[in-house]
Amino acid sequence: MSTSTDKVVITDPPRADLTDVDELAALGVATVHEALGRSCYLGPGLRPIQDGARIGGTAVTVLCWPGDNLMIHAAVEQCRPGDLLVVTTTSPCVDGLFGELFATALAHRGVRGLVTTTGVRDVADLRTMGFPAWSAAVSAQGSVKATAGAVNVPIVVGGQLVRPGDAVLADDDGVVCVPRARVAEALAAGRARLEKEEATRQAFRQGQLGLDRYHLRVTLAQLGVEYLSAAESGEWQR
Amino acid sequence: MSTSTDKVVITDPPRADLTDVDELAALGVATVHEALGRSCYLGPGLRPIQDGARIGGTAVTVLCWPGDNLMIHAAVEQCRPGDLLVVTTTSPCVDGLFGELFATALAHRGVRGLVTTTGVRDVADLRTMGFPAWSAAVSAQGSVKATAGAVNVPIVVGGQLVRPGDAVLADDDGVVCVPRARVAEALAAGRARLEKEEATRQAFRQGQLGLDRYHLRVTLAQLGVEYLSAAESGEWQR
Amino acid sequence: MSTSTDKVVITDPPRADLTDVDELAALGVATVHEALGRSCYLGPGLRPIQDGARIGGTAVTVLCWPGDNLMIHAAVEQCRPGDLLVVTTTSPCVDGLFGELFATALAHRGVRGLVTTTGVRDVADLRTMGFPAWSAAVSAQGSVKATAGAVNVPIVVGGQLVRPGDAVLADDDGVVCVPRARVAEALAAGRARLEKEEATRQAFRQGQLGLDRYHLRVTLAQLGVEYLSAAESGEWQR
Amino acid sequence: MSTSTDKVVITDPPRADLTDVDELAALGVATVHEALGRSCYLGPGLRPIQDGARIGGTAVTVLCWPGDNLMIHAAVEQCRPGDLLVVTTTSPCVDGLFGELFATALAHRGVRGLVTTTGVRDVADLRTMGFPAWSAAVSAQGSVKATAGAVNVPIVVGGQLVRPGDAVLADDDGVVCVPRARVAEALAAGRARLEKEEATRQAFRQGQLGLDRYHLRVTLAQLGVEYLSAAESGEWQR
Amino acid sequence: MSTSTDKVVITDPPRADLTDVDELAALGVATVHEALGRSCYLGPGLRPIQDGARIGGTAVTVLCWPGDNLMIHAAVEQCRPGDLLVVTTTSPCVDGLFGELFATALAHRGVRGLVTTTGVRDVADLRTMGFPAWSAAVSAQGSVKATAGAVNVPIVVGGQLVRPGDAVLADDDGVVCVPRARVAEALAAGRARLEKEEATRQAFRQGQLGLDRYHLRVTLAQLGVEYLSAAESGEWQR
Amino acid sequence: MSTSTDKVVITDPPRADLTDVDELAALGVATVHEALGRSCYLGPGLRPIQDGARIGGTAVTVLCWPGDNLMIHAAVEQCRPGDLLVVTTTSPCVDGLFGELFATALAHRGVRGLVTTTGVRDVADLRTMGFPAWSAAVSAQGSVKATAGAVNVPIVVGGQLVRPGDAVLADDDGVVCVPRARVAEALAAGRARLEKEEATRQAFRQGQLGLDRYHLRVTLAQLGVEYLSAAESGEWQR
Repeated sequence: MSTSTDKVVITDPPRADLTDVDELAALGVATVHEALGRSCYLGPGLRPIQDGARIGGTAVTVLCWPGDNLMIHAAVEQCRPGDLLVVTTTSPCVDGLFGELFATALAHRGVRGLVTTTGVRDVADLRTMGFPAWSAAVSAQGSVKATAGAVNVPIVVGGQLVRPGDAVLADDDGVVCVPRARVAEALAAGRARLEKEEATRQAFRQGQLGLDRYHLRVTLAQLGVEYLSAAESGEWQR
Repeated sequence: MSTSTDKVVITDPPRADLTDVDELAALGVATVHEALGRSCYLGPGLRPIQDGARIGGTAVTVLCWPGDNLMIHAAVEQCRPGDLLVVTTTSPCVDGLFGELFATALAHRGVRGLVTTTGVRDVADLRTMGFPAWSAAVSAQGSVKATAGAVNVPIVVGGQLVRPGDAVLADDDGVVCVPRARVAEALAAGRARLEKEEATRQAFRQGQLGLDRYHLRVTLAQLGVEYLSAAESGEWQR
Repeated sequence: MSTSTDKVVITDPPRADLTDVDELAALGVATVHEALGRSCYLGPGLRPIQDGARIGGTAVTVLCWPGDNLMIHAAVEQCRPGDLLVVTTTSPCVDGLFGELFATALAHRGVRGLVTTTGVRDVADLRTMGFPAWSAAVSAQGSVKATAGAVNVPIVVGGQLVRPGDAVLADDDGVVCVPRARVAEALAAGRARLEKEEATRQAFRQGQLGLDRYHLRVTLAQLGVEYLSAAESGEWQR
Repeated sequence: MSTSTDKVVITDPPRADLTDVDELAALGVATVHEALGRSCYLGPGLRPIQDGARIGGTAVTVLCWPGDNLMIHAAVEQCRPGDLLVVTTTSPCVDGLFGELFATALAHRGVRGLVTTTGVRDVADLRTMGFPAWSAAVSAQGSVKATAGAVNVPIVVGGQLVRPGDAVLADDDGVVCVPRARVAEALAAGRARLEKEEATRQAFRQGQLGLDRYHLRVTLAQLGVEYLSAAESGEWQR
Repeated sequence: MSTSTDKVVITDPPRADLTDVDELAALGVATVHEALGRSCYLGPGLRPIQDGARIGGTAVTVLCWPGDNLMIHAAVEQCRPGDLLVVTTTSPCVDGLFGELFATALAHRGVRGLVTTTGVRDVADLRTMGFPAWSAAVSAQGSVKATAGAVNVPIVVGGQLVRPGDAVLADDDGVVCVPRARVAEALAAGRARLEKEEATRQAFRQGQLGLDRYHLRVTLAQLGVEYLSAAESGEWQR
Repeated sequence: MSTSTDKVVITDPPRADLTDVDELAALGVATVHEALGRSCYLGPGLRPIQDGARIGGTAVTVLCWPGDNLMIHAAVEQCRPGDLLVVTTTSPCVDGLFGELFATALAHRGVRGLVTTTGVRDVADLRTMGFPAWSAAVSAQGSVKATAGAVNVPIVVGGQLVRPGDAVLADDDGVVCVPRARVAEALAAGRARLEKEEATRQAFRQGQLGLDRYHLRVTLAQLGVEYLSAAESGEWQR
């Protein structure tokens, strides 16, 4: 969904640094989301059409009218190597606004993938090509090219603002958008979190409990949680 | 849904002018949405709990954790006469985070109503009090007060960005948010549209067709739409 | 949703007889649905925007592109007194394709109401005007007039085929479409059912049980349903 | 949904005391839900077909096959004055399994209302009769009487267990089920909560803040929530 | 959903020619949908239980009561080599009406696959057998055999009419139904479209833009879309 | 959803016998569901994150607050080899309450898998680890650890009651919960059904029809189903 329907194509938005984007992508969506204070996740509604892809790119944003992919054509021209196309519509639409021909054109320009609140089609071809996509649906439903929209304006996807040039990361857990201004913060916090997770992983492998590692026994007690044996808790056995 | 989960209360955001807000509210949600180029509508998911209310106010925004209304308590203190509370959560939640006691506190401060992506409860009381609310659900499910969020940060509601101080308008058609910086534009365009609608209404009452008023016969012909009598269109009669 | 996207306006489809339509409407949606062997109901997804309306009319059908109400303009010209407008889109769309200006134009032509799988807007005005509507949503979201569709072709609404000229009936229980060729059958069966329901109503008011009136004790026994006292059914008391 | 599909009718389950049920009903759904530690609410999916009803009754439970209301007929015979019928199906079904004839039969037996995870029909008649109903949908879709189910077995509605004889309360906020064994606890806690709410209401009317009344300033500080003026929070003004 | 609940089995409907059906299947669902003027697609709600299958067959249609698969048993006998079973229910139902035993019986008769608006079960077995299926859900929920329905009557699936003998095509993008009378048209238009797509693919691989290939720069200009550099569009950078 | 929000951890619930659980798991979800009279299935909303897993275990149940996984930490300590974690929340929540670190800790304790009405994250890692999971969603959305819940109390999942120690079975068709007290019944009936299914499979492979095997021709005739040739059924060919 949109923050504006102004009819405009912004031609040269500044992008996040691709080296940074690649390092963020390697951290994974869940880790970066946590590193940003559990924010910037685009929600469980965007699902990958393939298994195992993990990518990052700089956002080229597209705002289309429902049932209409005219502005995706305009957006292709604005794409550079390292970009990732992020598409939404002015009102909800799961038609197949994007398919293999678009992917062919984008692959030629070095675009890394697609994130869309609409449907995609030709998914067998996209998987064969290795062009990764995250979408709200798979749909063969075709589009017209009749109504104006915008390219490279801020859009809203899954309740999060996506601005052109932001770092968009996607894997099997979904999609996260790191605002360009927060990339350095995300990298620092993400690296720290990765390290912490690895230490926890080792501890858990050796049998430590989260209750102890995170000092949660105190929390439980303060919240009034009681421990009862099954024998004591007659009622619960019914 | 959120644009950030930073833990902050912004205390004195500038507000849109209340005289302007009141005039916008009188225009109605659909007219203002059209006047802004068909943008800024918060979608069909927000429904009024009452019939016939038409209000406007300046947004005090609240970002809560799911199942937790702590930050609504913090928000009450930030409210002034003419405000309208706009609430969302960091991930989807339709619990009843808001009820009659909050409405009592807000009414005391001159707040005009509530817009929330969560549920509301005590709806019979809210109707009796005349405290209007638009929500995603009605739910008696109660909340805790345990997790931080934010007040008066930009939030996303129904795919649209809502900033503190924006003009939020609501009626039986739903909710529209006019960015503070676009209030003057919305007023001018809205007044013009109201006038145009009234002229169209008069013409339609006298039997003019939209086909003629909007010159759509040409459009239909250019798009290749044919006119056939039922007799000619044998196939369609099956 | 559509059975075809051919670009055509059929100008003079034969209609069901209005006297018959009015008698069917008076029987009510549930009764006519039952009379037709429990068929022809357009499903629980179409809800009235008002309480207490019960109407019938002859269908003028409209097939629009999502986000586009061009063909509703074309349809207005095809309407006659006693008609009822039935609108759908080629793929799902809940935008507000219909509002008070359309209702004004249609009321001038003697149209009795609207059934649509899209959203409607200006619902406060429609209620005031007394123009009844059944829709999938209420939405202020506006439309364009850019893409062709069809008028008076067979369309599918709620899983049922609606042909131009069919008898469409609507009340608080939803909408039923009686094919023109089955109107006489529906009337005969509907009158019979009404009579039978009234006899059952009287019997139930005097305390007869459905178990006895419909001879269901035998059915229950044949299906192996047992009667147990709470004391005998220890397990169930847990 | 079900906890069992055993084919059985339990004939005389013990019921909660009606005087207690009536006092619980008067407290209201939200208050009783809170009094029980925020439990036992049947969720936002059950909506009233009327405004302003507030009732309580002892549950007679019914488990039907989808599209089949045979067991409701069996249940009618098991109903006594003060009962409330609670219906669900073995797999999700929103067909109109219940309508005005059933309500007529139940009203004769002193039944107070209906709660169902299915659809209801004849809603205009039910409103006229004053027979209140809470359901997942309104649907005219009719049923058969061909498949066995159960009456007065424990069923699950909205994620909560409902046992025959439990106290079921319903108002504009939805439905709550108080287990028969917890009625006394619910009454005591509910009365206490009502009193506390009234004191809070008075305090809020005089301008006290929830932040102070519930000592939440400390909570906010402990959670790290900061207060910033709009001027200080440059970023947030964008 | 249904177009009728008449209790009938039609025994020998004429089928589309299998050579034609096979050629259509090879074109793919999206291409055939486009070739038919973007019609006849059964929507994004039908998803394959396997990856990579692309099949076509002649429809044997089945209309069941919810929770009941009696009529699928009747339909098996009506199936011939080259057929494809298409199942729906008189009201929405996602129970597992179809499983591996049915697939075994159908495979014996040369049936090519299943399309159903209900659920399917035994999906691991179906994948192992190589019996392809498209459904609205996967569900283990079992069925009864108690209520009549119909075989080889027109049914509605995903908003499209499916008649017995129609050419039904399915792949990873979903399902399309080509009316028997339109098979020749679909073949001709589909071949033409395939050729055009291949030419476009080659052009895109060499860097041509859709904007140029489809002459969309004119369209954008006529619609008032402006091009701005990021520097010029200060507001958008916020 | 919950049957109670009492704050309690039950420490040593009796478990179903693991040998029995393993034999039940081998029978498969659909077969066991049928063996129990078509009951105890946790519905189509729980989907596997992997293909081809078929497991069984004894339930350790967890009831969390939405957006909060504190109680999963408490639950880990209660797990033994052969257990299977079953998680739900007090109101609907699809956040990613569970990820790879939890799976690491549980694998160390011999836990066999996860069933949850919430989302899961780190799904690529879980697949690599071979830790199977069934969930309502995949979501990277993170959680807090701030609100009390319960471990090893009866919970409701997919409309079915799950008690600690019950036998929970999961495969590609979803999840079934066999109450501990019904394990022997399920085993006996499941073995019988397996045998019957195998006999039917052989018969179907040799061309027998379900119509004959299950004596359904009589049923169809009693229900009034007629057989017509396409030629006789003129109307149906339209």
